Amino acid sequence: MNMSNAMNTLGIVKRTIERADPEAVERLSRFGVATIHEAMGRVGLMKPYMRPVYPGATICGTAVTILLQPGDNWMMHVAAEQLRPGDVAVAACTTENEDGFFGDLLATSFRARGAKGLIIDGGVRDVKDLAEMDFPVFAKAIHAKGTIKATLGSVNVPVVCAGAVVNPGDVVVADVDGVVVVPAAIAGQVADAAAKREALEGDKREKLAAGVLGLDMYNMREPLEKAGLKYID
Amino acid sequence: MNMSNAMNTLGIVKRTIERADPEAVERLSRFGVATIHEAMGRVGLMKPYMRPVYPGATICGTAVTILLQPGDNWMMHVAAEQLRPGDVAVAACTTENEDGFFGDLLATSFRARGAKGLIIDGGVRDVKDLAEMDFPVFAKAIHAKGTIKATLGSVNVPVVCAGAVVNPGDVVVADVDGVVVVPAAIAGQVADAAAKREALEGDKREKLAAGVLGLDMYNMREPLEKAGLKYID
Amino acid sequence: MNMSNAMNTLGIVKRTIERADPEAVERLSRFGVATIHEAMGRVGLMKPYMRPVYPGATICGTAVTILLQPGDNWMMHVAAEQLRPGDVAVAACTTENEDGFFGDLLATSFRARGAKGLIIDGGVRDVKDLAEMDFPVFAKAIHAKGTIKATLGSVNVPVVCAGAVVNPGDVVVADVDGVVVVPAAIAGQVADAAAKREALEGDKREKLAAGVLGLDMYNMREPLEKAGLKYID
Amino acid sequence: MNMSNAMNTLGIVKRTIERADPEAVERLSRFGVATIHEAMGRVGLMKPYMRPVYPGATICGTAVTILLQPGDNWMMHVAAEQLRPGDVAVAACTTENEDGFFGDLLATSFRARGAKGLIIDGGVRDVKDLAEMDFPVFAKAIHAKGTIKATLGSVNVPVVCAGAVVNPGDVVVADVDGVVVVPAAIAGQVADAAAKREALEGDKREKLAAGVLGLDMYNMREPLEKAGLKYID
Amino acid sequence: MNMSNAMNTLGIVKRTIERADPEAVERLSRFGVATIHEAMGRVGLMKPYMRPVYPGATICGTAVTILLQPGDNWMMHVAAEQLRPGDVAVAACTTENEDGFFGDLLATSFRARGAKGLIIDGGVRDVKDLAEMDFPVFAKAIHAKGTIKATLGSVNVPVVCAGAVVNPGDVVVADVDGVVVVPAAIAGQVADAAAKREALEGDKREKLAAGVLGLDMYNMREPLEKAGLKYID
Amino acid sequence: MNMSNAMNTLGIVKRTIERADPEAVERLSRFGVATIHEAMGRVGLMKPYMRPVYPGATICGTAVTILLQPGDNWMMHVAAEQLRPGDVAVAACTTENEDGFFGDLLATSFRARGAKGLIIDGGVRDVKDLAEMDFPVFAKAIHAKGTIKATLGSVNVPVVCAGAVVNPGDVVVADVDGVVVVPAAIAGQVADAAAKREALEGDKREKLAAGVLGLDMYNMREPLEKAGLKYID
Repeated sequence: MNMSNAMNTLGIVKRTIERADPEAVERLSRFGVATIHEAMGRVGLMKPYMRPVYPGATICGTAVTILLQPGDNWMMHVAAEQLRPGDVAVAACTTENEDGFFGDLLATSFRARGAKGLIIDGGVRDVKDLAEMDFPVFAKAIHAKGTIKATLGSVNVPVVCAGAVVNPGDVVVADVDGVVVVPAAIAGQVADAAAKREALEGDKREKLAAGVLGLDMYNMREPLEKAGLKYID
Repeated sequence: MNMSNAMNTLGIVKRTIERADPEAVERLSRFGVATIHEAMGRVGLMKPYMRPVYPGATICGTAVTILLQPGDNWMMHVAAEQLRPGDVAVAACTTENEDGFFGDLLATSFRARGAKGLIIDGGVRDVKDLAEMDFPVFAKAIHAKGTIKATLGSVNVPVVCAGAVVNPGDVVVADVDGVVVVPAAIAGQVADAAAKREALEGDKREKLAAGVLGLDMYNMREPLEKAGLKYID
Repeated sequence: MNMSNAMNTLGIVKRTIERADPEAVERLSRFGVATIHEAMGRVGLMKPYMRPVYPGATICGTAVTILLQPGDNWMMHVAAEQLRPGDVAVAACTTENEDGFFGDLLATSFRARGAKGLIIDGGVRDVKDLAEMDFPVFAKAIHAKGTIKATLGSVNVPVVCAGAVVNPGDVVVADVDGVVVVPAAIAGQVADAAAKREALEGDKREKLAAGVLGLDMYNMREPLEKAGLKYID
Repeated sequence: MNMSNAMNTLGIVKRTIERADPEAVERLSRFGVATIHEAMGRVGLMKPYMRPVYPGATICGTAVTILLQPGDNWMMHVAAEQLRPGDVAVAACTTENEDGFFGDLLATSFRARGAKGLIIDGGVRDVKDLAEMDFPVFAKAIHAKGTIKATLGSVNVPVVCAGAVVNPGDVVVADVDGVVVVPAAIAGQVADAAAKREALEGDKREKLAAGVLGLDMYNMREPLEKAGLKYID
Repeated sequence: MNMSNAMNTLGIVKRTIERADPEAVERLSRFGVATIHEAMGRVGLMKPYMRPVYPGATICGTAVTILLQPGDNWMMHVAAEQLRPGDVAVAACTTENEDGFFGDLLATSFRARGAKGLIIDGGVRDVKDLAEMDFPVFAKAIHAKGTIKATLGSVNVPVVCAGAVVNPGDVVVADVDGVVVVPAAIAGQVADAAAKREALEGDKREKLAAGVLGLDMYNMREPLEKAGLKYID
Repeated sequence: MNMSNAMNTLGIVKRTIERADPEAVERLSRFGVATIHEAMGRVGLMKPYMRPVYPGATICGTAVTILLQPGDNWMMHVAAEQLRPGDVAVAACTTENEDGFFGDLLATSFRARGAKGLIIDGGVRDVKDLAEMDFPVFAKAIHAKGTIKATLGSVNVPVVCAGAVVNPGDVVVADVDGVVVVPAAIAGQVADAAAKREALEGDKREKLAAGVLGLDMYNMREPLEKAGLKYID
């Protein structure tokens, strides 16, 4: 028996995945990454080295996960077939590698399948084309280095991408502040909490703009004094 | 309802965890990290920045996981109570932070509970004491920076530590080559595969020492020629 | 007695600071960071990882310094009250940490106080909002990660921010080339020297544009020959 | 005898270099870096930390190489005299150093000599001016730090710049995907291969846009099955 | 007038400095870096990239500060004359540079002057000799790269070394946990606080070794419950 | 025609290489890396991230170069056949990759061929075995990650390893200070210059140990004064 199979990690394509509720996805798409991550209790973020490859890129959709091998993008082609409209390709690698796993041809194919973008803990290329196509990509690196097609990884297994666990079907939201992963099962709850949080922020913003201090608005003066803060001249 | 609870991520201590079979753990302790990771199909490794804090440190045991907040080691104390003989504390953080979350006092406490060592995606201190106690620690950094006790993380939830998913009860093996995580459910299988792999290596080692080339021992000459390798003078 | 107080480092808010002469600040605002740093004798720069969080951001003003704790932005709120029109908030941290200490609400509050921007050796978020507000921020990272309000730092103590000492009241100038700190006491002198330097540059630029070589304009041929430079064909 | 001379590395200016065929350079300028690097057999790239200092910068020309000493830009002035229309200055350093070796005055001079841009494994400054002049620069860092003129390096010796060997006269092409070096002797061949490659891509792009999968277009299904890929539901 | 002079930063050697009280220095030498930094209120640490260049190196003494230029160790020789028995050389650089500023000859000279070691935010070489001489050095890097003697820095001006301000005469303590700077004026107070802290630790260590939990010893159960910690099975 | 062949870079094994004169290699083995690099005019060093994988490792020998593909160690086996007694394997990669390309089996094979060690701009594993065998390795990383055998690189082509050009047959010397490459053609000259340099150092060391200052021994006082150095009290 093959250990890889035992672990359900390599050499596997899972065709049937449970995607998050489309209505919850749509609602989550209205919020920024910072708001969603706060609504989840301050968890779920990828590491901050994940950046949009062109200004203004944003993504919200359901994850089709890809586990790549270093210097090898074979699984990108396997993943293309599993993408459905509204999906986001989320690619991790079995080791750290910044080669250019993805470029304009794959973007053309992914778009034809209805994909909303790519999140990749690795490198991409043809960035000028990606910008012109407005196919949003968040990546660790931009690198022209080409890849081969020789070793199996997997599609739609759980992956760790830039420090965050992503399960197939989870909601992935990306904007200039970073990338957050919302487990499919709680997508609706998180959208509710995000909406509540955002409603509160409008009021706070007005007060702060009018010159009210956070010290007063949040009643911080007493706890600061208790903690021992000293004002001196 | 609290989203954190919904995600089972923050503010949680799970007291009952399913530890890997002790016999499998014992068998895994006989193999190196490289062998185990190969036996698993080349997965399960933490990132290579995880290093022993003193020479010769090695660890093999079942994971009690800890999710820390930056600059805060409160959960280390909560975790101590959950440690049983044979366990390894595995600490992740909600963000990147290299403060000294752990030192000789906590090591004394963890040892009193029977812990075999600590794996931490962060910093530790009192390294001279740790070496003298021979309490093995694999860490991202050595840093004297102290921490506070103010914010809840969790104990025994699944964590991502240095790029690897660790579930409570998983087997964690660490040596000079790095750190590997073996899911509890397949610990026995992996130990079998590792034993088989190691048996084969002895024979290979002898042949190579006698001057046989890997080119011949692995029958590589034909595939190399097919791939187009050219010998020139 | 509290050692922190002895060091005047933690748990302190200094309300009365001596700000650099406004006329000198205004004159310094006309020059680029490179010119000012040269005028000071090539010192005073922060490390080059400090970057504007949106294109075109520039800052010039007097420093209100903030010493943060990792993952904690309590002192940002304390600092807001100390900001006066023309000030720049300059935030350091007691350890390396890239969490998102600052976002659109604090920017709203800082702007209401008259602040010209933020320099932070850490992370910020809500970058889209910051760009829309045109509230300039120079930071080490962009990160959606939220922070808590639990531990005291200080306001208006001397800090080391990205490798540079900043005293409250110093002039801080930031543009695409980086961030430079001008001690309050020599702000006028530095502005004079910068003006002199810039005046000379216009003439040089014209000559170079006309094809005169730096080798000749700066009389380098003789010292190069003395140093042993060999021309070969 | 001086060892430096023996090595032809330091204290040398080579005035006569063999530049790549201008017609080949012109043809190479029509292709992206990714295409050229593929046409060369996936070699010749600089490391991906080399980035354009302003959006939209691109370069294609023949290399005049510069070997700098840390914190010293003397050789930039020596190099200016060796630049001819169509050249690209390619600067390496004898050690890692991110000081601002180059700014608007040198850009003015290099442009007056006909240079097409600068590739530097180090820092540059006056980036706002460089953008306004549209003088393209690809660099490791942006840093206002000034440099001195005290120690000899060389001009037009072979250098290692960001991991790639550059010989004087080689073609250097830079765009948003990175920087590639084409040896002068094979510039024409590489241009031919790039043209052929690009011709094929147009057809592929159309098919992929029409929904054909790479799996089918590249006949990957059989090799994937042979490699052991399993589809599960 | 020279701006550098105005800033008292470059081209200056201060011969008369106020060194910390020798008795306080002696007392501080008995404590570890972690203990001292805690006794100061958790400040004063250099960044954790500062590491001993051979195992077992430790330093405690009064700082003679050195401000170096990149790739230039001229000021090391100037500093040698200012060293007195019990001093520690503390070297910063005007920019980031890892060249080998220091080797066995300078170590021989510094030792002849009575210096206790070197702390350098840069590189050193001849590490085998340093270990054999047992001349302790804490550095950012080990690098064989030689340096020149061409540009003025300073000796005994305040410097920022690895993120910490060091004034001439301050106490610098280094061990395997890192490097801490104690301002001369509070050296005695800090030694007192460190002694008190260490006295308390012995008792805690015994209790923890006997199996008492930190949860109970520090009375953490109630605050953890208030903070919302949930135990589940 | 294949561009790779045109570039003599990929898919090539050169069997006949011109190794440096054995007598010069033997003489170079007596000197440290810092001395040799100075004797060459301060060039030829690899980047300082190249470190011995166990304490006390040193290497001196003639290079057999290896160009690897990411995650693939096939060429290691091809290279084994080309190794002769006294050779050092020097491995570069077509991209940045820290996988464990080399372990105890390859070390056994390389040693059987007479190799003196390995220099690799990548990762290695089985470090405990390497130390026990005393097979010296200088590497960028220690990583248990296994590699495949699928794509051609080359053997005995010029490579860039950790920033230094290495031609087959060059002398490579490695010790705790780093790694230096001496071109085969000047190995004897460099050994002469190193001997001369070392002879001078003994005398200097004695003087410095006796308390003579470098300021006087190197006659630095006058040039320092001319440069404007000011002594103040």
